[in-house]
Amino acid sequence: MNFNYNLPVNLMFGRGRSSEIGKEVKKYGNKVLIVTGRNSTKKSGLLYKVIDVLNGENIEYEIFDKVTQNPLSTTIYEGVSAIHETNCNVVLGLGGGSIMDAAKSIAFCAKNPGNIEDYIYGIKKGENALPILLVPTTCGTGSEGNAFSVITNVDTKDKKSLRDNLIIAKASIIDPELMTTMPKSVLASVGFDALAHNMEAYLSKITNPLVEIQALYAMKLIAENLPKVYVDYNDFDAWEAVTLGSTLGGMVIGVAGVTAAHGMEHPASGLRDIVHGKGLAALTPIITEKSWRSDVYKYGEISKVLGGSSAEDCRQAIENFLDKIDLKVKLGDLGIRKEDISWMTENCFKVSKPSMENHSKIFTKEEVSEIYNESI
Amino acid sequence: MNFNYNLPVNLMFGRGRSSEIGKEVKKYGNKVLIVTGRNSTKKSGLLYKVIDVLNGENIEYEIFDKVTQNPLSTTIYEGVSAIHETNCNVVLGLGGGSIMDAAKSIAFCAKNPGNIEDYIYGIKKGENALPILLVPTTCGTGSEGNAFSVITNVDTKDKKSLRDNLIIAKASIIDPELMTTMPKSVLASVGFDALAHNMEAYLSKITNPLVEIQALYAMKLIAENLPKVYVDYNDFDAWEAVTLGSTLGGMVIGVAGVTAAHGMEHPASGLRDIVHGKGLAALTPIITEKSWRSDVYKYGEISKVLGGSSAEDCRQAIENFLDKIDLKVKLGDLGIRKEDISWMTENCFKVSKPSMENHSKIFTKEEVSEIYNESI
Repeated sequence: MNFNYNLPVNLMFGRGRSSEIGKEVKKYGNKVLIVTGRNSTKKSGLLYKVIDVLNGENIEYEIFDKVTQNPLSTTIYEGVSAIHETNCNVVLGLGGGSIMDAAKSIAFCAKNPGNIEDYIYGIKKGENALPILLVPTTCGTGSEGNAFSVITNVDTKDKKSLRDNLIIAKASIIDPELMTTMPKSVLASVGFDALAHNMEAYLSKITNPLVEIQALYAMKLIAENLPKVYVDYNDFDAWEAVTLGSTLGGMVIGVAGVTAAHGMEHPASGLRDIVHGKGLAALTPIITEKSWRSDVYKYGEISKVLGGSSAEDCRQAIENFLDKIDLKVKLGDLGIRKEDISWMTENCFKVSKPSMENHSKIFTKEEVSEIYNESI
Repeated sequence: MNFNYNLPVNLMFGRGRSSEIGKEVKKYGNKVLIVTGRNSTKKSGLLYKVIDVLNGENIEYEIFDKVTQNPLSTTIYEGVSAIHETNCNVVLGLGGGSIMDAAKSIAFCAKNPGNIEDYIYGIKKGENALPILLVPTTCGTGSEGNAFSVITNVDTKDKKSLRDNLIIAKASIIDPELMTTMPKSVLASVGFDALAHNMEAYLSKITNPLVEIQALYAMKLIAENLPKVYVDYNDFDAWEAVTLGSTLGGMVIGVAGVTAAHGMEHPASGLRDIVHGKGLAALTPIITEKSWRSDVYKYGEISKVLGGSSAEDCRQAIENFLDKIDLKVKLGDLGIRKEDISWMTENCFKVSKPSMENHSKIFTKEEVSEIYNESI
């Protein structure tokens, strides 16, 4: 047993705790850049509630609402310009995974000049970052619980994580009540992303006992409770459980990384801007079918959590779970075409090498191509 | 469900990893104060190995070897003087719980002037601390995994924790091989301390699900493996498990605190300098007998981990475990006298108020007196 565990998260978890945003921001600065999306936090009213709370604490703010799904490095640079123009000294990410990831990279790039890719690929090392606060409004990415920020390059279509403890949030306020404004289809895809994080960190070759117990617990929380909230948005105990499972998913990948499903999904959503959780839903069953013999014990445990009985029926257990949340999809339904396979295969070995190496079975390029092919 | 989780530990766990001490120290300073005990790291040769490693990295060092069991605030001030006289800029705690706790408080007091009690009792707030590295040589305290440093005042006999995230180690190198030089009697008492940490954090009123899963896992590791190493020092898998269980014990009390057994033991070891783990062994069965009805589910889980069947036989399960490691003792055997009860009872409500409030059952002064009385 040989491992490192260094994940300095600061979690504030509980229903209604988004009311504490103002007090937390105040600890780190007096002018905050609120990074959010174009619509959802306006439609839900959350943005205006947060503004009220900030006003109550006499904190100045600016709004940066240009972040889209699969955030682009160009958007990050726009955010950095907004920081420099407005002299904000703290960054608040208010939204789902794309928003939180963008907030993290904006806070990072505000202090580290040049191309973000140089830091993503380890050519340069970050020195500092603005203080970051994160408030998730979806229960999927777990970005509030780790040092990752997944950014897509608009030219190369490379979708890859910046990973640096400098971008771990000074505080993450995780309020399960904020999740309930998600549309059902979003809930299904982010919820499956959270399950996938826990499955992959559990299976990862660089996992450790702390990760294993957290991931197994989180898988149970999500397996049991995601279908419950999917049919009944009023089940708050289930919301709490799914939300905690999602944050844990972020934490466990923060230590043990992801494996083949995330590794193969990033090229697909990098290229065609597909919904990440749907991409995972298309790929995970097929990857599981090709992988379970490489770790019969752990695939067996995953299968049991999902209502199966052994590693052998793990794929079926995953598909049964996807059925419950109406998420059985193929990459073809999402816009991926046969002629994309060769680019995606090459790109997978470029952007996802560590994730593919963490997987219990090492796939050749031919095997990766074959999995993409079956998934379409 | 409502909780905070903020425990920025950096754990480097694995057999033989003490060889990495030099490289880690170098990240934080160029002259290190090695805080250690009078004898054990010299007798085991560890101190000289560490000096070799530091020389290999061209790191200067000074040795401060005046720390005793139940470290005194006066010893802390001596350590601070050593820092100021020698211009050390990093502190390495090399030893058991008393050593690590002293290292933490020396690093803290080197940057925060005045009496340590002012910080312990929250009258003043710390601003900074020297960087701390911890290398445990006993598997009990878990001090390498939290922000606590338990210090005894030589005049008042108050034994109470300094608690500040400033004193969380920059890195803790946890090498299970270092544990194997402990005498058997020390192993029994520190191992029971580790078990008690996990039991108490699990039971604590301010626990949370992350603590619960870690504590339950750690209790299983210790319950199964401490008796194994106790009879066979060559069982390295068991050493790894007990060591991990001990670090987890430190982490879980770092978040959820301790409860009545620790709360009542501190007055005893503060007054009569008894071995902490033995004090816990004397008190825990009786406290369990008086408490199990207050949380039948959790005492039942603890009982099962220890080979019992339900909350009702939890006391017996603990006593059976103590039998396996030859640790059935009474406070009377340790030097506590009937006439100490009244001072200890008063002191318990002075130094251990939060711990007594975390306990599943709230004890009156009369009940605390009665427990001390039965334990003698």
